[in-house]
Amino acid sequence: MADRLIYLPLGGAGEIGMNAYVYGYGAPGKERLILVDLGVTFGDMDSTPGIDLIMPEMAWLEQNRDRLEGIFITHGHEDHLGALGHLSARLDVPIYARKFTGTLCRLKLEDQGLSPDMVRIVGPRPEATQLGPFKVQFVPISHSIPESSALTIDTPAGRIVHTGDFKLDGTPVVGDAFDPMMWRDIAQEGDGIKVLTCDSTNVFSPHPGRSEATLAQPILEWVMAQKNMVVATTFASNIARLKTLADAARASGRKVCLLGRAMRRMVSVGFDTGILTDFPETIGPEEAAGLPRDQVMLIVTGSQGERRAASAQLSRGRYLGLSLKEGDSFLFSSRTIPGNERSVIRIMNALSELGVNVFDADDGVFHVSGHANRPDIEAIHDLLKPGMVVPMHGEHMHLRAHMKLAQDRGTPSVIATDGMMVDLTGNAPKVVDHVETGRIYLDGSVLIGAMDGIVRDRIRMALNGQAMVSVIVDEDDNVLPDAWVELSGLADRTRGGDDLAQHIEGELAEFLDGADARVVRDDAKMDEAIRKITRQVAMEEIGKKPEVTVIISRLMAD
Amino acid sequence: MADRLIYLPLGGAGEIGMNAYVYGYGAPGKERLILVDLGVTFGDMDSTPGIDLIMPEMAWLEQNRDRLEGIFITHGHEDHLGALGHLSARLDVPIYARKFTGTLCRLKLEDQGLSPDMVRIVGPRPEATQLGPFKVQFVPISHSIPESSALTIDTPAGRIVHTGDFKLDGTPVVGDAFDPMMWRDIAQEGDGIKVLTCDSTNVFSPHPGRSEATLAQPILEWVMAQKNMVVATTFASNIARLKTLADAARASGRKVCLLGRAMRRMVSVGFDTGILTDFPETIGPEEAAGLPRDQVMLIVTGSQGERRAASAQLSRGRYLGLSLKEGDSFLFSSRTIPGNERSVIRIMNALSELGVNVFDADDGVFHVSGHANRPDIEAIHDLLKPGMVVPMHGEHMHLRAHMKLAQDRGTPSVIATDGMMVDLTGNAPKVVDHVETGRIYLDGSVLIGAMDGIVRDRIRMALNGQAMVSVIVDEDDNVLPDAWVELSGLADRTRGGDDLAQHIEGELAEFLDGADARVVRDDAKMDEAIRKITRQVAMEEIGKKPEVTVIISRLMAD
Repeated sequence: MADRLIYLPLGGAGEIGMNAYVYGYGAPGKERLILVDLGVTFGDMDSTPGIDLIMPEMAWLEQNRDRLEGIFITHGHEDHLGALGHLSARLDVPIYARKFTGTLCRLKLEDQGLSPDMVRIVGPRPEATQLGPFKVQFVPISHSIPESSALTIDTPAGRIVHTGDFKLDGTPVVGDAFDPMMWRDIAQEGDGIKVLTCDSTNVFSPHPGRSEATLAQPILEWVMAQKNMVVATTFASNIARLKTLADAARASGRKVCLLGRAMRRMVSVGFDTGILTDFPETIGPEEAAGLPRDQVMLIVTGSQGERRAASAQLSRGRYLGLSLKEGDSFLFSSRTIPGNERSVIRIMNALSELGVNVFDADDGVFHVSGHANRPDIEAIHDLLKPGMVVPMHGEHMHLRAHMKLAQDRGTPSVIATDGMMVDLTGNAPKVVDHVETGRIYLDGSVLIGAMDGIVRDRIRMALNGQAMVSVIVDEDDNVLPDAWVELSGLADRTRGGDDLAQHIEGELAEFLDGADARVVRDDAKMDEAIRKITRQVAMEEIGKKPEVTVIISRLMAD
Repeated sequence: MADRLIYLPLGGAGEIGMNAYVYGYGAPGKERLILVDLGVTFGDMDSTPGIDLIMPEMAWLEQNRDRLEGIFITHGHEDHLGALGHLSARLDVPIYARKFTGTLCRLKLEDQGLSPDMVRIVGPRPEATQLGPFKVQFVPISHSIPESSALTIDTPAGRIVHTGDFKLDGTPVVGDAFDPMMWRDIAQEGDGIKVLTCDSTNVFSPHPGRSEATLAQPILEWVMAQKNMVVATTFASNIARLKTLADAARASGRKVCLLGRAMRRMVSVGFDTGILTDFPETIGPEEAAGLPRDQVMLIVTGSQGERRAASAQLSRGRYLGLSLKEGDSFLFSSRTIPGNERSVIRIMNALSELGVNVFDADDGVFHVSGHANRPDIEAIHDLLKPGMVVPMHGEHMHLRAHMKLAQDRGTPSVIATDGMMVDLTGNAPKVVDHVETGRIYLDGSVLIGAMDGIVRDRIRMALNGQAMVSVIVDEDDNVLPDAWVELSGLADRTRGGDDLAQHIEGELAEFLDGADARVVRDDAKMDEAIRKITRQVAMEEIGKKPEVTVIISRLMAD
């Protein structure tokens, strides 16, 4: 069979987060493969209580590991590189990234006790990495973290442009500006661009995106207008924003103090790799606490309301010797990601209770997005004139809107969500296969499958409460009197005021007393009967059907 | 001591939801009391998993029940009357409301098996209810449910206006328009208005609010532009919106089908009380399923993404014989309440997967708020010229902003959150006492206290998992070999691939084998030691510290 060019998202398509996109070229079923990005997404109490990180299921890629040539990381955001430390050892191929991003990749590996040597630092275009049938170049593109790159992936079937996350920013403050002339060249080289795999995040935003540089003046004016301590929070990785904030502090005679491990790490890597220059000198929290309040600006983590981050700690009172007071000012220079609203609002109210004046970016004055809006997406389609568009980095509705946008302009497109293998060889993308995909969870220190039932059990315990029943059966298959019931997460009193556990014990004793010997001898039957009675009694008495764990201990003859 | 006029919020101040405001007049500590509203708020998985409803703690009012004259319900929203069925029996006083609202109150009592007779239907101003030192009038005001009322509460110390929820809407489609002339009269009667207790919900919205009537044209145009089945969702109680949607259906030749119990109940009460007139005839789901798709509009519950409501059911496939298809259109004519974003987005994506075109109210074209925006709040301050302003119906940050707004205009104000007793007698509000308040939860069929630890245990089980350990001690205080461990919501394998439960059992066996007799005889010591070992082993092996329940069974000599 003829060689073909394929695209297979394993994460990031049909969701925003945990990006992992496979490209392949070769005979069907024997394509040589590369992986673009290997990110995480974050859980929530609703669907993944207790889970630390969520990653794409790599089973398909592990099974085809001998065909995998390497991993390319487009930029340093967690949803693009966060799973490296947990999953790259299973794939065991080199990881390619530019310097700043690659340094972050190495830290991710070291965090998990792995050698950073698998990370190969490569330069931007015109430097190229040839792996099997793929020639890959990192092309600077603007986003909300420095050194973001699109990839050109040249294959025997033609050129792919994989945008990564991007916006059209001619003045991004830190990092490479969007360069339309270079992109025009890329579109005109050879046979032009066959496939554009394109960021869909902001396809519903109708107005052209604004440059990072537009924030400098409003933020400076805001800082100048504040009379006491100033605190600003944003995404730790948004180094340009950190610089804009810090520059405003310097210009208004304030010293900058950075709080939060992630932020200090980002800035440190920014310095080390030469990405970040002319950043104001920073001071530690102890020194900040000693200065007059109108001479300090804290720049802190926790813009999404994370419970343990600096913003939340400050809102609860003292943090590292610093405390906020009546008349201080707190700026959220960030957008709240859907799902985090209540956490952010909780912090805003806690700050309000301290008398702190809270400012947010709702009206767009103090924050700009890192993603291309609808007109910008149209502009990149126009500029690159691809033969087809494959929308990525979006939930289903984003992918669908992006596909329609392309199709309305006469460009073939398709909705391909995680696990859908798309043949890109012809003149239009075509779904040719479905691959088993899913999610794996980092839970404490182990990886578990999303479908293992562990999280399902947690959710059930949280919603329904938990009852534990212990029953002892003696050597002669007689049930000892008094089943023991312990309740957790359940009302302990019935509507009538009785002790619920005792009430269940009473009903169980009655059942056990008259239980048939065949039931008593059979663990499964005993378990089922006890479970059923426990749930029935709880339902009658308090209107809940708890999860039930039954432990049957059978005494052995000595 | 001289008589005083007091205000005491028990719910709704420092939060949005579960409104319950007490006013009192008389000798300090002996004031006669009235309660305005008795609402609920809704829980979430983050903070209240498994909880059905959240209500204000009424302990203070129960203790002072002999001083309570009655309850006044301003309007029919759940956050103003939803707790009546659960709590009013404890207070045992008459409930006063206008006809439509009162009918909803009666249904709430009947839902809980209580007699509806405690509800007294009263007419709007000039009708007045005299209870002890209070003369209370219901004054029609516009909001997002018909028959919303502010209250004038005349006391020997002066007149209070309690706005309830309101907006300034001269054309509210259904129900009473805002009538500035009447309000001017109210402000000019007698000594004018001493206290304005005022809705703060939209104090951060900078533009004047828009009328419900402005939606008719855009919604009609939208419906006319759709080619297949049309579905619209909004709050069930927003009868004006239901009428606007249904009118648009009728004008475009579509039959209306209402889906969702809450919505059908609201419309039915609307008809019965004469509030709702000239509403298009509706059809049932069966008939709707039989009509051509371009002749139907479904108006459905579930605008907040509620899992069991009609919107969610439709997004998952079939519901009552109806199913959505490629090319159908779905309108969210509603605002997403913070915290519900992910649920709403989940439905939007599920609809996208069905090929349904989703439209939302993000840009304000298809939804208007029911609350007064900042300029409207300023307008009501201007119109009523109160001696002081007490902000209510808001989180701390809303109350604070509203207080500042009042103070900036020269009107004394105060932040009073739940449990803060405010003396209104003088020329400025003054916090004079703090009363124990809190929340109670409806959990299944029982009421539990927020601080009882039940919900805390659920959250811990959800985050950390649960281990159950059963140990048997014989008649001679010897521990039988083999502690039994059951895990729930925990990885069953260690990083090394061992069975975690067995591993814990092994460690426990080792401990029990060498345990001191004084420990074995002491339940508390055994419990503590077993718990500690279980948590340690789990932490080492999987990085989690589970909740542990230990059951020690002691065999008795026969």
